[in-house]
Amino acid sequence: MKNINIGIVGLGTVGGGAVQALIEKRKMIEAKTGFSLNLLKVFDKDATKVKSLKLLKSKKAKSVNEVLDNDEIDIVVELIGGVHPAREIILKAIANGKHVVTANKALLAECGNEIFTKALKEGRCVGFEASVCGAIPIIKTLKQSFAANKISALYGIVNGTSNFVLSKMAEDDYSLKKALSEAKKRGIAESDPTVDLEGIDSSHKLAILATLCFGGIIKLKDIYVEGIKQVEAQDIVYARAWGHDVKLLAIAKKHGNSLQLRVHPTLIPLKHLLSNVKYEDNAVFVKGDMIGESMLYGKGAGRMPAASSVLSDIVDIARKVNSLGVESACASDNLWVKKEELNKISQIGDLMSRYYIRISAIDRPGVLAGVSTILAKNGISIANVSQKERKKDQVVPIAMFTHDAKESSMMRALKAIDKLSYIKKKSVRIRMER
Amino acid sequence: MKNINIGIVGLGTVGGGAVQALIEKRKMIEAKTGFSLNLLKVFDKDATKVKSLKLLKSKKAKSVNEVLDNDEIDIVVELIGGVHPAREIILKAIANGKHVVTANKALLAECGNEIFTKALKEGRCVGFEASVCGAIPIIKTLKQSFAANKISALYGIVNGTSNFVLSKMAEDDYSLKKALSEAKKRGIAESDPTVDLEGIDSSHKLAILATLCFGGIIKLKDIYVEGIKQVEAQDIVYARAWGHDVKLLAIAKKHGNSLQLRVHPTLIPLKHLLSNVKYEDNAVFVKGDMIGESMLYGKGAGRMPAASSVLSDIVDIARKVNSLGVESACASDNLWVKKEELNKISQIGDLMSRYYIRISAIDRPGVLAGVSTILAKNGISIANVSQKERKKDQVVPIAMFTHDAKESSMMRALKAIDKLSYIKKKSVRIRMER
Repeated sequence: MKNINIGIVGLGTVGGGAVQALIEKRKMIEAKTGFSLNLLKVFDKDATKVKSLKLLKSKKAKSVNEVLDNDEIDIVVELIGGVHPAREIILKAIANGKHVVTANKALLAECGNEIFTKALKEGRCVGFEASVCGAIPIIKTLKQSFAANKISALYGIVNGTSNFVLSKMAEDDYSLKKALSEAKKRGIAESDPTVDLEGIDSSHKLAILATLCFGGIIKLKDIYVEGIKQVEAQDIVYARAWGHDVKLLAIAKKHGNSLQLRVHPTLIPLKHLLSNVKYEDNAVFVKGDMIGESMLYGKGAGRMPAASSVLSDIVDIARKVNSLGVESACASDNLWVKKEELNKISQIGDLMSRYYIRISAIDRPGVLAGVSTILAKNGISIANVSQKERKKDQVVPIAMFTHDAKESSMMRALKAIDKLSYIKKKSVRIRMER
Repeated sequence: MKNINIGIVGLGTVGGGAVQALIEKRKMIEAKTGFSLNLLKVFDKDATKVKSLKLLKSKKAKSVNEVLDNDEIDIVVELIGGVHPAREIILKAIANGKHVVTANKALLAECGNEIFTKALKEGRCVGFEASVCGAIPIIKTLKQSFAANKISALYGIVNGTSNFVLSKMAEDDYSLKKALSEAKKRGIAESDPTVDLEGIDSSHKLAILATLCFGGIIKLKDIYVEGIKQVEAQDIVYARAWGHDVKLLAIAKKHGNSLQLRVHPTLIPLKHLLSNVKYEDNAVFVKGDMIGESMLYGKGAGRMPAASSVLSDIVDIARKVNSLGVESACASDNLWVKKEELNKISQIGDLMSRYYIRISAIDRPGVLAGVSTILAKNGISIANVSQKERKKDQVVPIAMFTHDAKESSMMRALKAIDKLSYIKKKSVRIRMER
């Protein structure tokens, strides 16, 4: 039986899971595939992580180069995260003739083109299923299963932390602050959750997915990003009363040659499948000209879900290596460097959308007249209004759903509304999707 | 650019879609993959179907052997359906050194082992993504993405016709008969819908999926099958009132060495993602030791969704042929013939489940006492009861949810209940899943 030799760099949550799975699953994978996955070397700059593993001492590398320069290693698995030194490690691994498996979304979103160009030139594979949505096989599905489709839209819940926070607010009436502290307690949020709550993590994933769907090279700066921190519990209550849920969505849509790329809180109908994707779960919708609409759902993060995708990439590359020898090219997999289409990136101001808006006004006669006049002047018409009775001269929220409006008009209207004397807080607006 | 030559046998709905897609998508696939899919020959025993295609005369074969014996053809696509002569066509294609793509679930459920053993021996690939759930990439996901997982359960909605009928009954208050006639009008049900409504089509798909998940060879007779014809509109009303929906599910579950295989109407909670899978859509849940729970959703049938999966298989095989030459083996893909585990098939009588039951009794004192005594004697305890007031001495339905009970006890209890003098119709029981 042929051995495929593997080196792992980075032994954190996912790395530790991958080591465990490679050991525990070896026999099962041998039976299924006819080859053996042999964990040859592991390395982490944190020596205690290496020490704590129950592995032969000979497998514990003392430097990253002991992995990268090992001639017997076929596949280098990079699981340290962050752009540097992950970029340098992967580029050196490829230069040394290794195939690479990575879960590093930030790196691929920033340097994907450089890495895949190098891999294509050297005829090496780069597997990255674990970089987006944990156990969900979205990368392989876009690269292979939907290969014959012209994709018109991709959107979904790709960040478990913010989905957990919004779910706790919606299901259990938590405030954002309390939901976040619960998420930290459960290990779903990091001690500094900025990257997740601000939508940055989602934008990294969207950059990778949109590159696969729409060709060209998507830059992070092309993506409009807005996090969930402005969403209050009362917004979710209003949304639910009108049959909607609030989710942080990553959205890529193509209209003709123009590509929309945006991450923001979004109202979706309660009957939408994404509305039932709760807590730390993720799900991605894909619309294609042949498949119609399809959705993939599952665990978006976590030790074993991510390790499952790492192993699927390893098995996939090993199958190729096993039948082709290490010398073969994985060129046809590297969609990244193909610029089949030039995308014109839409500006967020040009977006047409329905909106939920909530204004905070002193309760006195003429408030609704003043607000609705400004909306009308900007061509925005109101579909629903909800104003709860409160005590006179106190601040009350007024919530509205609008019909389709242009984002730039909406921003102009809200700016004017917020200048009215009886408006006491910055108004909130959340985009809607059907 | 290398040409991959393709022959298609069977030009019905899916075959016609595949021809159209191969022509329309050729350039896009060339740009993505670096090879060219060349439709070399097509055949259908119905000469009018061949004639109606806008293809060069030289591409229109006059016999199936003109396709199978053509030395230039790399991949034969079989889309005629049914066991014979599809089996003979595929076996001959493999014997002639062709790779095969098929959408034929009945054939694979019956003769999968024979076909994959032959393919393995000859080193040829057999792609069958389109055989289960149209555009949903469930085959590739089970074979590749979830390869490192020990699967403990797979269940889902795999038949669009019966899901359409049940959805129409639930959403629009249609009777089964009216829903079925609507389905026929829309081309979702065939003129004889027996195979779909009786659960037979679902059992074919379950046989294929369970073979991939659990190894061994699943025979059709190992699957307990029950269709939707006993489900009445009032059952859906009761189910909804108690927070449930009725769906035709295909279920495979493994407990230790024992494998449950069943297709039947099932009550699932309204909050379950499958509850929002409506009309002709399909969805499959997979539970694995690493991935946790994952779901794939999409169009389960139709011309272009199925053609999308046919093309994905063609592209997949073409990638291998392109880098390996036609001589290479696709052995590691052929999980079918690996009998990694011997499954003991559970008998349906041994199933433990909650049940919905509905009895039809003359409305008189003592009915509920009589029925509940029989249930209690068989160890079945009741969770909910709903008996609507009707006129005395008329037949009224009594609906119940039970706690967990053994199927054989339930069958014995219902047999005894149906013998009571005041029971006027055969009682209905529907299994529940959480």
